[in-house]
Amino acid sequence: MPETVTIVEVGPRDGLQNEQQTVSVETKAELVERLANAGLTSVEAGAFVSPKWVPQMAASDEVMAKIKRRDGVSYPVLTPNTKGYEAAKAVNADTIAIFGAASESFSKKNINATIEESLERFRPVAEAAKADGIKVRGYVSCVLGCPYEGKVALDSVVRVSKALYEMGCYEISLGDTIGVGTAGEARAMVRAVADAVPVTALAGHYHDTYGQALANIYASLEEGVRTFDSSVSGLGGCPYAPGASGNVATEDVVYMLEKSGFATGADLDALVETSLWISERLGRAPASKVTLARRAKRTP
Amino acid sequence: MPETVTIVEVGPRDGLQNEQQTVSVETKAELVERLANAGLTSVEAGAFVSPKWVPQMAASDEVMAKIKRRDGVSYPVLTPNTKGYEAAKAVNADTIAIFGAASESFSKKNINATIEESLERFRPVAEAAKADGIKVRGYVSCVLGCPYEGKVALDSVVRVSKALYEMGCYEISLGDTIGVGTAGEARAMVRAVADAVPVTALAGHYHDTYGQALANIYASLEEGVRTFDSSVSGLGGCPYAPGASGNVATEDVVYMLEKSGFATGADLDALVETSLWISERLGRAPASKVTLARRAKRTP
Repeated sequence: MPETVTIVEVGPRDGLQNEQQTVSVETKAELVERLANAGLTSVEAGAFVSPKWVPQMAASDEVMAKIKRRDGVSYPVLTPNTKGYEAAKAVNADTIAIFGAASESFSKKNINATIEESLERFRPVAEAAKADGIKVRGYVSCVLGCPYEGKVALDSVVRVSKALYEMGCYEISLGDTIGVGTAGEARAMVRAVADAVPVTALAGHYHDTYGQALANIYASLEEGVRTFDSSVSGLGGCPYAPGASGNVATEDVVYMLEKSGFATGADLDALVETSLWISERLGRAPASKVTLARRAKRTP
Repeated sequence: MPETVTIVEVGPRDGLQNEQQTVSVETKAELVERLANAGLTSVEAGAFVSPKWVPQMAASDEVMAKIKRRDGVSYPVLTPNTKGYEAAKAVNADTIAIFGAASESFSKKNINATIEESLERFRPVAEAAKADGIKVRGYVSCVLGCPYEGKVALDSVVRVSKALYEMGCYEISLGDTIGVGTAGEARAMVRAVADAVPVTALAGHYHDTYGQALANIYASLEEGVRTFDSSVSGLGGCPYAPGASGNVATEDVVYMLEKSGFATGADLDALVETSLWISERLGRAPASKVTLARRAKRTP
């Protein structure tokens, strides 16, 4: 029996939110549905954040209302505060996500709060969700580097991860937001966090800006991590805007995992189709080498 | 003290040979010199193969004559047979490379010989080199898959690797020629070969067609491999010809290794400069995410 690895698909949220082009509610809902139909059991569907800051997520309530939900699939949405939480609850979100940073400067620039302030802001959200029976996922960004500070202390990653876990998050997603980390660094980081939070509650969230994401995933697997975030078609990092911090492509992760002997439950063919479909909608090439290689094979 | 990993730069040969555009002798020689100046201690400089089949390598004798060689750097050249060997000897090659395949169909289509025939053809080359004090490197292609046969038996990889090693090759470069392998497969393959050939005599040669090369390198490192082939700028796989089997980019490998705590002796800045320079000469974008990310940072 192959070991199971869970993919948390973040394309419809973390991906689309970083694409230049905005897509319609219909397309977003179809994307979420296609991904769930491809066998992914967790598909991030939107964010209840200020549309002033993240216009691409403005219609998350409509998207959530439109999706035909599948049994056994969760559809997390981002909620930075109580207001966002109430909006998520109103559309019957099954899972919410709160997001802290391991870097003080990034926290201030990204959510206009110190790390401590952000944790205090998340606490009532986590408590309300618990009372309402809604699951809470925690993100920690900048775990392997910060665009403003450069190196980030492992202590800080551990401290924020632990705080979110103790607040009730069932899973802590460790994000290399700017994609600068390498396998050796990812491994050391995971090891440090796993001293404070059970490794079964950790997820790796690696961006592929420097081409390191799959190696980081493999290194994290070696440390016992069995959940990874990825984005179909590498949404969030346009191949024609080199240097953009794109999520690792779901197809590439599934390809590696399945051929390395893990079971993901995902249908690679369906993911490749979805990747080609959404890329066409966005008018850009897929940022997945697996999808590009498969497409090249078909059209010699 | 960080552990040392050796990079065998194959851009000027395996890379350029697979680019559509041919470059001048001057550019080739400058490329080799720039790479050696960047701290790489092994830079594959050409091939003495039939110019009918590989026109891009036609002037390898002129390139070899032109290069200002650095002490402590080796400049391997490919020699498929005795005729090629004599040509390599005539230009004072310090190292030659012979190349077998782990797949019978690939061997027949690539060098028009069965695996056994190819080994018999290499034997006198290896013996002559030994007598002349010239080092011999051995390539095995299709170690993780064949474009004609699909799966390749590990037995075959082990058998060919062992034969080349026993013939006197100081190093066996294990090539995933079509870039289909994953970390789990690379690891199992290395483990099998390391039962027959000392792991210190093995090199990983991974193509990035499916985005798996860095993860494969990391997995091979875990098995004790400390030598890897790579190609500056990912030469050999044009980013605008998706699906082309490109070598993994040297910059991306060096970035991963150095930040993971290994010493390569290479100067990443110089590699990035060389990558931008040769890409401009070829009129294409660098196929290295590290180089693209660094370039994007410079020109906001």
